[in-house]
Amino acid sequence: MFHNEDEFVRWLQKRLPSAGLSAPVGIGDDAAVVRIRGDFDCLLTADLSIEGVHFSARWHSPKVVGHRALARSLSDIAAMGGAPCFALVSLAISNKLTRRWLEEFYKGLAALAERFRVRVIGGDTARVKDRAAIDITVVGEVKRGYSLTRSGARAGDLIYVSGRLGLSELGLRCLRHPRRVLERNLSQKHRAAAIEAHLYPQPQCALGRFLSRHRIASAAIDVSDGFALDLSRIAKASGVGARIVERQIPGPVGVPREMAEDLALHGGEDYQLLFTVPPSKARRLQRSFQGIPIHCLGTITASRELRLVREDGQAVPLEPLGYDHFRKR
Amino acid sequence: MFHNEDEFVRWLQKRLPSAGLSAPVGIGDDAAVVRIRGDFDCLLTADLSIEGVHFSARWHSPKVVGHRALARSLSDIAAMGGAPCFALVSLAISNKLTRRWLEEFYKGLAALAERFRVRVIGGDTARVKDRAAIDITVVGEVKRGYSLTRSGARAGDLIYVSGRLGLSELGLRCLRHPRRVLERNLSQKHRAAAIEAHLYPQPQCALGRFLSRHRIASAAIDVSDGFALDLSRIAKASGVGARIVERQIPGPVGVPREMAEDLALHGGEDYQLLFTVPPSKARRLQRSFQGIPIHCLGTITASRELRLVREDGQAVPLEPLGYDHFRKR
Repeated sequence: MFHNEDEFVRWLQKRLPSAGLSAPVGIGDDAAVVRIRGDFDCLLTADLSIEGVHFSARWHSPKVVGHRALARSLSDIAAMGGAPCFALVSLAISNKLTRRWLEEFYKGLAALAERFRVRVIGGDTARVKDRAAIDITVVGEVKRGYSLTRSGARAGDLIYVSGRLGLSELGLRCLRHPRRVLERNLSQKHRAAAIEAHLYPQPQCALGRFLSRHRIASAAIDVSDGFALDLSRIAKASGVGARIVERQIPGPVGVPREMAEDLALHGGEDYQLLFTVPPSKARRLQRSFQGIPIHCLGTITASRELRLVREDGQAVPLEPLGYDHFRKR
Repeated sequence: MFHNEDEFVRWLQKRLPSAGLSAPVGIGDDAAVVRIRGDFDCLLTADLSIEGVHFSARWHSPKVVGHRALARSLSDIAAMGGAPCFALVSLAISNKLTRRWLEEFYKGLAALAERFRVRVIGGDTARVKDRAAIDITVVGEVKRGYSLTRSGARAGDLIYVSGRLGLSELGLRCLRHPRRVLERNLSQKHRAAAIEAHLYPQPQCALGRFLSRHRIASAAIDVSDGFALDLSRIAKASGVGARIVERQIPGPVGVPREMAEDLALHGGEDYQLLFTVPPSKARRLQRSFQGIPIHCLGTITASRELRLVREDGQAVPLEPLGYDHFRKR
């Protein structure tokens, strides 16, 4: 494939958006040198994408793997209210992968990086016998003191999410069990939308920046492991609870109601933003932001439980099931 | 081992040096928030450590794995002339690893981090079936415009290394083939020193900072893949060549001369600094720095070849053999 690491680095430099151009020093030295503006804080996040855990060669093309691996980290920066700037890509390449796979992987990654003006400035590579593993670190910036955390939610704050929940999980199920879901009368159009949401999730960086710049959100997280689980993280970090109104949950369209609710509450990898807003600031939020609908799902409570208010008014416990990458499988 | 990721994060927060204390936001949010001083540049490096490639459970204890994984990145920051500040640790944990393994791994990592005042502020974790993989990103800082790169070497510059070369490779051989090397009359003392150099390499951050702060070095790299290969990288990046004087190569003591030279030229993972100095600045260098000897090995040349000057005065090509993590094995 490549004769040595240096050859690979040269190959890489040609493929990545402005690597080593805007940063004083980029790929190919011991470390990259970057500049963070004086009145900005530096955001740092790292996310693993592992073959057989986060992706499968059966339904994830290399382009999709590249897109999704970077999208995970960009979404973390969005949840902090920042703008992503730089990425380091560490790639343990399985012996089974071809040069063509790498080409496509970096195409998917570079296209997303370019759209968000993220410069890939470093990383590491190694050859492994077994499964491929990718770790992407993204460096972002946020105006000093303006970052959104998980810990700022207060009783009475309203709970919002962007977009539709559960679409990514539905898309994955369509790819995995095409017949099972189609039997449930999912239209071609809804099916395609779900698959697109799964394969090419769109990090909500513009919304995150809007919420932080205008100090609208009191807390934020990205919906990566399922709405209920990620909501429980905000609740725990803030020392509060939440009441979610069943009727207001924006689940996937075109599937049976119960399934839609289950997907919306516990499906992972939507990479939408889940955030809380004090009532006094709620009118600064529109029904949509740059074409993406914004839904209000409930309120933060002082009692530290998560509750789901059914259509009949009954409040039942909302379990943070979701997806845990750490569980043995 | 752990019931879920959140439990693991809480466990981790207790074990890592001041995680989340000095940084405004640390482990446990979507991204870490850090501040880089206004007149400083931010250095970024990421390094993979993979079971079966970079370490083996047979001769690397978990404590050693933790130390070495972090040392690799700290050494990159040293080679840029910077001070390491923050680390993100991404860990793909194999199902075979125990909680005790993790305890020891973080002990080794945390001890080194503490000594260099590096705060672990984030990362990611996942469970894998096969081999463990670690990716460590380190963020450092260097006074604006003072970073050392590989590309500044000029013809006439003197070539230096810190410490002894080839010790780490010798130590690894002692661990791998204890009988073969002992047969060659390596004393117990030299054997122990070599093994220590392999298991607990010491990143040369203080030396790197000294060289950059006083603008002594024109180029620098850390000796991670073998002196000859790393020298060839400085030569390539600077568009120059080099002449190394065989007699001046500081190889391991106590092994046959030929073996010592081979280890010194091509053994990897010494994590010493290899740097070039214009002759006018050479007298600002002492024979040692904080107890570590500094050796002059030769000079940078305008012709783009690497040459080794033998004791009899003959100049032979110096091949950049070294260690390439990228090669199939």
